[in-house]
Amino acid sequence: MSPADAWIDAVRFDANGLITAVSQDAASGQVLTVAWMNREALLLTIAEQRAVYWSRSRQAIWRKGETSGQVQRLVEIRLDCDGDTLLLKVDLAGGVACHTGREHCFFRRLEGQEWIVAEEVRIAPDILYGKQPGVRS
Amino acid sequence: MSPADAWIDAVRFDANGLITAVSQDAASGQVLTVAWMNREALLLTIAEQRAVYWSRSRQAIWRKGETSGQVQRLVEIRLDCDGDTLLLKVDLAGGVACHTGREHCFFRRLEGQEWIVAEEVRIAPDILYGKQPGVRS
Repeated sequence: MSPADAWIDAVRFDANGLITAVSQDAASGQVLTVAWMNREALLLTIAEQRAVYWSRSRQAIWRKGETSGQVQRLVEIRLDCDGDTLLLKVDLAGGVACHTGREHCFFRRLEGQEWIVAEEVRIAPDILYGKQPGVRS
Repeated sequence: MSPADAWIDAVRFDANGLITAVSQDAASGQVLTVAWMNREALLLTIAEQRAVYWSRSRQAIWRKGETSGQVQRLVEIRLDCDGDTLLLKVDLAGGVACHTGREHCFFRRLEGQEWIVAEEVRIAPDILYGKQPGVRS
Protein backbone atom coordinates (compact mmCIF):
# COMPACT_ATOMS: atom_id res chain seq x y z
CA MET A 1 0.00 0.00 0.00
CA SER A 2 1.32 3.43 -0.88
CA PRO A 3 1.09 6.19 1.78
CA ALA A 4 -1.47 7.84 -0.50
CA ASP A 5 -3.89 5.00 0.30
CA ALA A 6 -3.79 5.50 4.09
CA TRP A 7 -7.44 6.67 4.07
CA ILE A 8 -8.47 3.10 3.32
CA ASP A 9 -7.37 2.00 6.81
CA ALA A 10 -10.54 3.64 8.18
CA VAL A 11 -12.66 1.37 6.00
CA ARG A 12 -13.80 -1.80 7.75
CA PHE A 13 -14.26 -4.64 5.31
CA ASP A 14 -16.20 -7.63 6.66
CA ALA A 15 -14.97 -11.21 7.12
CA ASN A 16 -15.40 -11.73 3.37
CA GLY A 17 -13.38 -8.62 2.59
CA LEU A 18 -16.47 -6.69 1.49
CA ILE A 19 -18.20 -3.45 2.43
CA THR A 20 -21.77 -2.36 1.66
CA ALA A 21 -21.96 0.56 -0.77
CA VAL A 22 -25.15 2.60 -1.20
CA SER A 23 -25.41 4.75 -4.31
CA GLN A 24 -27.53 7.87 -4.36
CA ASP A 25 -28.30 10.23 -7.22
CA ALA A 26 -26.38 13.39 -6.36
CA ALA A 27 -29.02 15.63 -7.92
CA SER A 28 -32.34 14.08 -6.90
CA GLY A 29 -31.30 12.27 -3.72
CA GLN A 30 -32.90 9.05 -4.97
CA VAL A 31 -31.31 5.93 -3.52
CA LEU A 32 -30.31 3.94 -6.59
CA THR A 33 -28.57 0.69 -5.68
CA VAL A 34 -27.00 -1.18 -2.80
CA ALA A 35 -24.00 -3.25 -3.81
CA TRP A 36 -20.67 -4.44 -2.45
CA MET A 37 -17.04 -3.44 -2.83
CA ASN A 38 -13.85 -5.18 -1.93
CA ARG A 39 -10.64 -3.25 -1.41
CA GLU A 40 -9.71 -3.38 -5.09
CA ALA A 41 -13.16 -2.15 -6.18
CA LEU A 42 -12.98 0.77 -3.76
CA LEU A 43 -9.52 1.77 -4.95
CA LEU A 44 -10.71 1.54 -8.56
CA THR A 45 -13.78 3.64 -7.71
CA ILE A 46 -11.52 6.41 -6.42
CA ALA A 47 -8.96 6.07 -9.20
CA GLU A 48 -11.53 6.05 -12.00
CA GLN A 49 -14.11 8.32 -10.30
CA ARG A 50 -16.93 5.96 -11.16
CA ALA A 51 -18.66 3.25 -9.14
CA VAL A 52 -16.80 -0.05 -9.36
CA TYR A 53 -18.29 -2.90 -7.33
CA TRP A 54 -17.49 -6.50 -6.48
CA SER A 55 -20.06 -8.83 -8.00
CA ARG A 56 -20.74 -11.54 -5.46
CA SER A 57 -22.61 -13.66 -8.01
CA ARG A 58 -19.85 -13.46 -10.61
CA GLN A 59 -16.99 -13.15 -8.08
CA ALA A 60 -15.44 -10.45 -10.22
CA ILE A 61 -14.80 -6.73 -10.38
CA TRP A 62 -17.90 -5.06 -11.80
CA ARG A 63 -17.50 -1.67 -13.40
CA LYS A 64 -21.08 -0.48 -13.12
CA GLY A 65 -22.29 0.30 -16.64
CA GLU A 66 -19.61 -1.73 -18.41
CA THR A 67 -22.25 -3.52 -20.48
CA SER A 68 -25.24 -1.18 -20.33
CA GLY A 69 -23.34 2.09 -20.56
CA GLN A 70 -25.20 3.19 -17.41
CA VAL A 71 -22.14 4.45 -15.59
CA GLN A 72 -22.35 5.96 -12.09
CA ARG A 73 -19.90 8.88 -12.12
CA LEU A 74 -18.58 9.62 -8.65
CA VAL A 75 -19.50 13.00 -7.21
CA GLU A 76 -18.68 12.31 -3.56
CA ILE A 77 -17.97 9.36 -1.32
CA ARG A 78 -18.77 9.12 2.37
CA LEU A 79 -18.06 6.63 5.16
CA ASP A 80 -20.40 5.97 8.06
CA CYS A 81 -19.74 6.25 11.78
CA ASP A 82 -18.50 2.73 12.29
CA GLY A 83 -16.67 2.53 8.98
CA ASP A 84 -18.59 -0.42 7.55
CA THR A 85 -20.81 1.28 4.96
CA LEU A 86 -20.04 3.63 2.07
CA LEU A 87 -22.39 6.18 0.55
CA LEU A 88 -21.63 7.21 -3.02
CA LYS A 89 -23.26 10.29 -4.45
CA VAL A 90 -23.23 9.77 -8.18
CA ASP A 91 -24.17 11.34 -11.45
CA LEU A 92 -26.39 8.86 -13.28
CA ALA A 93 -26.14 10.39 -16.73
CA GLY A 94 -28.04 7.58 -18.46
CA GLY A 95 -30.94 7.64 -16.01
CA VAL A 96 -31.02 3.89 -15.33
CA ALA A 97 -29.35 2.20 -12.36
CA CYS A 98 -31.33 -1.06 -12.11
CA HIS A 99 -30.79 -4.10 -14.33
CA THR A 100 -34.58 -4.15 -14.87
CA GLY A 101 -34.24 -0.89 -16.81
CA ARG A 102 -35.67 1.27 -14.06
CA GLU A 103 -34.08 4.36 -12.60
CA HIS A 104 -33.33 2.56 -9.36
CA CYS A 105 -33.66 -0.85 -7.72
CA PHE A 106 -36.23 0.05 -5.04
CA PHE A 107 -39.26 -0.08 -7.28
CA ARG A 108 -41.44 -2.28 -5.05
CA ARG A 109 -43.39 -0.49 -2.34
CA LEU A 110 -45.34 -2.27 0.39
CA GLU A 111 -49.00 -1.31 0.32
CA GLY A 112 -51.02 -3.15 2.92
CA GLN A 113 -49.99 -6.78 2.42
CA GLU A 114 -48.62 -6.45 -1.11
CA TRP A 115 -45.51 -5.28 -2.89
CA ILE A 116 -46.64 -2.87 -5.61
CA VAL A 117 -44.41 -2.03 -8.59
CA ALA A 118 -44.13 1.72 -8.21
CA GLU A 119 -41.59 2.66 -10.91
CA GLU A 120 -41.71 2.39 -14.68
CA VAL A 121 -39.16 0.71 -16.92
CA ARG A 122 -37.21 3.46 -18.67
CA ILE A 123 -35.19 1.26 -21.04
CA ALA A 124 -36.19 -2.34 -21.77
CA PRO A 125 -33.49 -4.74 -20.53
CA ASP A 126 -32.97 -6.33 -23.97
CA ILE A 127 -32.11 -2.90 -25.34
CA LEU A 128 -30.06 -1.99 -22.28
CA TYR A 129 -27.94 -5.12 -22.63
CA GLY A 130 -27.99 -5.53 -26.39
CA LYS A 131 -29.99 -8.73 -26.00
CA GLN A 132 -27.30 -10.45 -23.99
CA PRO A 133 -29.38 -12.37 -21.46
CA GLY A 134 -28.15 -12.65 -17.94
CA VAL A 135 -25.71 -9.78 -18.09
CA ARG A 136 -25.95 -7.38 -15.18
CA SER A 137 -25.76 -3.63 -15.55
CA MET B 1 -47.14 -17.36 9.46
CA SER B 2 -50.56 -15.88 8.91
CA PRO B 3 -51.73 -15.37 5.30
CA ALA B 4 -51.49 -11.65 6.00
CA ASP B 5 -47.71 -12.01 6.15
CA ALA B 6 -47.38 -13.51 2.65
CA TRP B 7 -45.58 -10.37 1.42
CA ILE B 8 -42.58 -11.39 3.50
CA ASP B 9 -41.95 -14.36 1.19
CA ALA B 10 -40.53 -11.90 -1.36
CA VAL B 11 -37.91 -10.79 1.15
CA ARG B 12 -34.62 -12.65 0.85
CA PHE B 13 -32.85 -12.90 4.16
CA ASP B 14 -29.19 -13.94 3.97
CA ALA B 15 -27.56 -17.06 5.44
CA ASN B 16 -27.64 -15.37 8.87
CA GLY B 17 -31.33 -14.57 8.51
CA LEU B 18 -30.64 -10.87 7.98
CA ILE B 19 -31.40 -8.24 5.36
CA THR B 20 -29.75 -4.85 4.84
CA ALA B 21 -32.06 -1.92 5.59
CA VAL B 22 -31.25 1.60 4.42
CA SER B 23 -33.11 4.45 6.10
CA GLN B 24 -33.71 7.72 4.30
CA ASP B 25 -35.32 10.92 5.57
CA ALA B 26 -38.65 11.08 3.75
CA ALA B 27 -38.58 14.86 3.58
CA SER B 28 -34.98 15.74 2.75
CA GLY B 29 -33.87 12.54 1.01
CA GLN B 30 -30.80 12.33 3.26
CA VAL B 31 -29.55 8.77 3.72
CA LEU B 32 -29.52 8.33 7.50
CA THR B 33 -28.39 4.85 8.52
CA VAL B 34 -27.70 1.39 7.17
CA ALA B 35 -28.61 -1.37 9.58
CA TRP B 36 -29.93 -4.93 9.59
CA MET B 37 -33.25 -6.62 10.15
CA ASN B 38 -34.19 -10.20 10.78
CA ARG B 39 -37.67 -11.48 10.08
CA GLU B 40 -38.96 -10.50 13.51
CA ALA B 41 -37.55 -6.97 13.22
CA LEU B 42 -39.18 -6.50 9.83
CA LEU B 43 -42.55 -7.72 11.08
CA LEU B 44 -42.26 -5.40 14.10
CA THR B 45 -41.32 -2.49 11.81
CA ILE B 46 -44.53 -2.99 9.85
CA ALA B 47 -46.67 -3.65 12.92
CA GLU B 48 -45.38 -0.65 14.87
CA GLN B 49 -44.75 1.63 11.86
CA ARG B 50 -41.30 2.54 13.13
CA ALA B 51 -37.84 1.22 12.29
CA VAL B 52 -36.99 -1.86 14.34
CA TYR B 53 -33.61 -3.43 13.58
CA TRP B 54 -31.59 -6.43 14.63
CA SER B 55 -28.50 -5.37 16.52
CA ARG B 56 -25.68 -7.64 15.40
CA SER B 57 -23.43 -6.45 18.23
CA ARG B 58 -26.03 -7.02 20.92
CA GLN B 59 -27.77 -9.93 19.16
CA ALA B 60 -31.11 -8.44 20.07
CA ILE B 61 -34.12 -6.63 18.66
CA TRP B 62 -33.32 -2.92 18.52
CA ARG B 63 -36.19 -0.47 18.45
CA LYS B 64 -34.39 2.50 16.98
CA GLY B 65 -34.74 5.35 19.44
CA GLU B 66 -35.64 3.18 22.43
CA THR B 67 -32.96 4.87 24.54
CA SER B 68 -32.36 8.17 22.77
CA GLY B 69 -35.97 8.89 21.83
CA GLN B 70 -34.77 9.38 18.25
CA VAL B 71 -37.44 7.19 16.68
CA GLN B 72 -37.63 6.64 12.91
CA ARG B 73 -41.34 6.70 12.07
CA LEU B 74 -42.11 4.66 8.97
CA VAL B 75 -43.45 6.59 6.00
CA GLU B 76 -42.85 3.99 3.29
CA ILE B 77 -40.94 0.75 2.83
CA ARG B 78 -39.49 -0.52 -0.42
CA LEU B 79 -37.78 -3.71 -1.57
CA ASP B 80 -35.09 -3.83 -4.24
CA CYS B 81 -35.04 -5.81 -7.49
CA ASP B 82 -33.45 -8.95 -6.08
CA GLY B 83 -35.25 -8.77 -2.76
CA ASP B 84 -32.17 -8.53 -0.55
CA THR B 85 -32.26 -4.88 0.50
CA LEU B 86 -34.95 -2.73 2.09
CA LEU B 87 -35.29 1.05 1.80
CA LEU B 88 -37.22 2.75 4.59
CA LYS B 89 -38.42 6.29 4.11
CA VAL B 90 -38.81 7.67 7.60
CA ASP B 91 -39.82 10.70 9.53
CA LEU B 92 -36.93 11.60 11.83
CA ALA B 93 -38.81 13.88 14.17
CA GLY B 94 -35.89 14.31 16.58
CA GLY B 95 -33.38 15.18 13.87
CA VAL B 96 -30.68 12.75 14.98
CA ALA B 97 -30.14 9.29 13.49
CA CYS B 98 -26.49 8.62 14.37
CA HIS B 99 -25.26 7.51 17.78
CA THR B 100 -22.63 10.27 17.54
CA GLY B 101 -25.44 12.81 17.82
CA ARG B 102 -25.34 13.78 14.16
CA GLU B 103 -28.28 13.83 11.79
CA HIS B 104 -26.95 10.81 9.92
CA CYS B 105 -24.11 8.31 10.00
CA PHE B 106 -22.37 9.34 6.76
CA PHE B 107 -20.55 12.33 8.17
CA ARG B 108 -17.09 11.51 6.82
CA ARG B 109 -16.37 12.64 3.26
CA LEU B 110 -13.26 11.68 1.32
CA GLU B 111 -11.31 14.74 0.23
CA GLY B 112 -8.12 13.83 -1.57
CA GLN B 113 -6.51 11.25 0.72
CA GLU B 114 -8.39 12.15 3.90
CA TRP B 115 -11.76 11.54 5.51
CA ILE B 116 -13.08 14.95 6.56
CA VAL B 117 -15.83 15.27 9.19
CA ALA B 118 -18.49 17.09 7.21
CA GLU B 119 -21.45 17.17 9.63
CA GLU B 120 -21.91 18.79 13.02
CA VAL B 121 -23.03 17.12 16.24
CA ARG B 122 -26.62 18.19 16.89
CA ILE B 123 -27.02 16.62 20.33
CA ALA B 124 -24.04 15.54 22.41
CA PRO B 125 -24.11 11.75 22.94
CA ASP B 126 -24.07 12.04 26.76
CA ILE B 127 -27.26 14.09 26.55
CA LEU B 128 -28.73 11.82 23.89
CA TYR B 129 -28.21 8.74 26.04
CA GLY B 130 -28.59 10.24 29.49
CA LYS B 131 -24.91 9.53 30.22
CA GLN B 132 -25.34 5.81 29.76
CA PRO B 133 -22.08 4.95 28.03
CA GLY B 134 -22.08 2.35 25.32
CA VAL B 135 -25.79 2.47 24.63
CA ARG B 136 -26.68 2.71 20.97
CA SER B 137 -29.43 4.92 19.62
